[in-house]
Amino acid sequence: MSDAEVIGQLRAALGQRVDTSAATLEDARADRSGHASAGPPLAVVHAESVADVQETLRIAHATRTPVVTRGAGTGLAGAANAGPGEIALSTLRMDGITEIRPDDLLAVVQPGILGGDLSRALAAHGLWWAPDPASREISTVGGNIATGAGGLLCAKYGVVRDAVLGVDLVLADGRLLRLGHRSVKGVTGLDLTSLVIGSEGILGVVVSATLKLRRLQDDPPCTIVASFPRVRDAASASAAVTASGIQPAIMELMDATSLAAVHALLDLPAPAPGTAQLTVQTDGPAAADEADRIAATLRSAGGTVSLTRDREEGERLLAIRRAMHPAMAALGTTLIEDVSVPRSALPAMFDEIARIERDHGLTIPTVAHAGDGNLHPNFIFDGPDVPPGIWSAADDLFRAAIRLGGTLTGEHGIGTLKSRWLAEELGEDQWDLQRRIARAFDPEGILNPGKVFTEREGADA
Amino acid sequence: MSDAEVIGQLRAALGQRVDTSAATLEDARADRSGHASAGPPLAVVHAESVADVQETLRIAHATRTPVVTRGAGTGLAGAANAGPGEIALSTLRMDGITEIRPDDLLAVVQPGILGGDLSRALAAHGLWWAPDPASREISTVGGNIATGAGGLLCAKYGVVRDAVLGVDLVLADGRLLRLGHRSVKGVTGLDLTSLVIGSEGILGVVVSATLKLRRLQDDPPCTIVASFPRVRDAASASAAVTASGIQPAIMELMDATSLAAVHALLDLPAPAPGTAQLTVQTDGPAAADEADRIAATLRSAGGTVSLTRDREEGERLLAIRRAMHPAMAALGTTLIEDVSVPRSALPAMFDEIARIERDHGLTIPTVAHAGDGNLHPNFIFDGPDVPPGIWSAADDLFRAAIRLGGTLTGEHGIGTLKSRWLAEELGEDQWDLQRRIARAFDPEGILNPGKVFTEREGADA
Repeated sequence: MSDAEVIGQLRAALGQRVDTSAATLEDARADRSGHASAGPPLAVVHAESVADVQETLRIAHATRTPVVTRGAGTGLAGAANAGPGEIALSTLRMDGITEIRPDDLLAVVQPGILGGDLSRALAAHGLWWAPDPASREISTVGGNIATGAGGLLCAKYGVVRDAVLGVDLVLADGRLLRLGHRSVKGVTGLDLTSLVIGSEGILGVVVSATLKLRRLQDDPPCTIVASFPRVRDAASASAAVTASGIQPAIMELMDATSLAAVHALLDLPAPAPGTAQLTVQTDGPAAADEADRIAATLRSAGGTVSLTRDREEGERLLAIRRAMHPAMAALGTTLIEDVSVPRSALPAMFDEIARIERDHGLTIPTVAHAGDGNLHPNFIFDGPDVPPGIWSAADDLFRAAIRLGGTLTGEHGIGTLKSRWLAEELGEDQWDLQRRIARAFDPEGILNPGKVFTEREGADA
Repeated sequence: MSDAEVIGQLRAALGQRVDTSAATLEDARADRSGHASAGPPLAVVHAESVADVQETLRIAHATRTPVVTRGAGTGLAGAANAGPGEIALSTLRMDGITEIRPDDLLAVVQPGILGGDLSRALAAHGLWWAPDPASREISTVGGNIATGAGGLLCAKYGVVRDAVLGVDLVLADGRLLRLGHRSVKGVTGLDLTSLVIGSEGILGVVVSATLKLRRLQDDPPCTIVASFPRVRDAASASAAVTASGIQPAIMELMDATSLAAVHALLDLPAPAPGTAQLTVQTDGPAAADEADRIAATLRSAGGTVSLTRDREEGERLLAIRRAMHPAMAALGTTLIEDVSVPRSALPAMFDEIARIERDHGLTIPTVAHAGDGNLHPNFIFDGPDVPPGIWSAADDLFRAAIRLGGTLTGEHGIGTLKSRWLAEELGEDQWDLQRRIARAFDPEGILNPGKVFTEREGADA
């Protein structure tokens, strides 16, 4: 069937919610990974209801048209980039809150709601959804679920997988499933909710999510900033904090290049050359005591330490870390990597990054969620395409992470950017099994084809 | 192929680890659900290594012989009961600890280790694996993973799904997969680790697990016991604690019949007729303050309250709750149910239980993990088989739980006992999808056939 015929069917069913304006189609080609599809998709459907999603998928299924589900387009792995011959299905307009239940510590939301908007709505009830990706103000809850997002608070408060009780999922053929439950516990059948979390649009379209909430904490957090002469010292200091047995809420590491770039972006005084920084936050009833003990550990590890118990001052200090992504974007096109290693391997991983910088003649500004061992090395280059030399360095980086007991991606996902390494980490048997499972959801393979499993696409089903 | 030929192949490969003694075969027919298979299995294989598990499955796969994986046989849903023509594969001898890493807060263990043994080994390192099923001293970690076990601490510390980073899984044909990771974060491909948790032996055999640990807490816990004249008052009081925003580590409810039965078993003075009891424990640095506030809430709700800050005294008080299962077993054959509802629905669920008692002319002693909305109503009867009247009351119970937004099973699993209700909760579409996913792991259907999906067995694949 021709693109025009598919568009015609969509328009007949969905009217003005089918958008083929050049600017919209162009937007749908890319996320924030710095990568774009080969060309614009055939249409963007702005779904406003579950019925819109079902109708779109029924048409796509009947016409064997690929569907790429998108939220706010803030992904960092290319998973939501829509290309020629594909329908981009946007759930951004499905941004409502269906239900907030303080007594059951849960909320039911539509996928298009932004994390920041949700956070403010919940705060009015004294509640909080723990996942805190750096993109929270601009990314959707649906996108957070699709990528299995992490963020700054994961060592203490878990990842998205730990904070979702259930999802409503529209299958490739338009049928609606209700997965999971509203109770804290539930083991009725296989845990398909967890399977959908992090599945990057290949299993179905999430149209509703039941979120597991926490109470907002009254005690003000304490924030510690510690500077170190070398990045390895900062990494060792963070490992010492973890080994000390105190669990900070946040523990972020910025290497010298990252710190300097953010200071430049924010018009702050330049740090001394080579200076790396840890930003640590404690919370809860023991926050002040824990902060004192962490500060002592950081001083013993050679850090220059300052500590504040003021909430606003703490936010200002964390804003430096949160400005990392725009600071990198100001330097050129960015390939943000996302390897994750066991916490004890963090200093060794920084050694590997230093080696890769030397071997490949590159500077690789790196920040890390040091509390949980998740690193974001940034490759900066000019122009839209990743140069082969950068791919080669990235390859070196991934293999180093896997050697250290780590994984390709802690929170950004595979998308298109990491699919070439997926089978290497999973092994061929697991790669095949995962693909068979995806086919159980989507026998025709119309959902986000070429993502995640792209390298061997067409090998078999 | 005849049973004798299968046994011959197993013996040739595994020697003395193949056990066909009458007593062993008889044991393998049953778990602690009060139910048994129709007859003994053809053999019990006592696997001592991953290679033993692989070899058993290769033979089973080649001969199309069903395999029922078993740990300590403490399940409560019949999922590990092995019957005629089946191989019972025991992983109880694979009880080693491969690795304990305090710096990475993880341990790697074999499936046969008992929870209590693991707990003591970890305590020597100041560490703790949070899952705390009432069976901890007698159940295996592998069994906890297979059922997706819960326990007493779940509202604050999560369920097994939240405490496992990865598993090694032997597939039906003997191939070994390594699922998951060792890092706190990881979203490389589909989350098959979560899918295996709670899968009740139908996807593969777990031969190793990487567990996510916590630090043991120094602060002594505080324990509160509150008595109420009626069970509904106790349920409302627990809901008031949840609604107050304080998160106890443990909040257990015992109704009057349960409390009286345990007091009788333990030779304690009989409680006043009708008395129901809440046992609440707080922990962490704010334990004492939280306990005071919870005690005040319970008094306002009409409770007679006592509070101790002594660790041993707290354990003695909790032992009353932990003695529930033997107290019930002393009364007759027990069918322990396991419905879970949103926390706010706990009082309404107790109303439903009272109604079902009246409608069916039964007494249904009930305990509840009140902090997370998980109830264990007990049906007591004589003889080995569940009478039709009990099934009818259980049916009434399940439907009431689902009506209240709950689920069939919070932590025990489906097994054979609840499979007749599975499709009702999941819906036909999800039931079919779950079955297709299981077939992706086990195309020949040799793993625990007749469990979980039993009712429509043979309908299609």
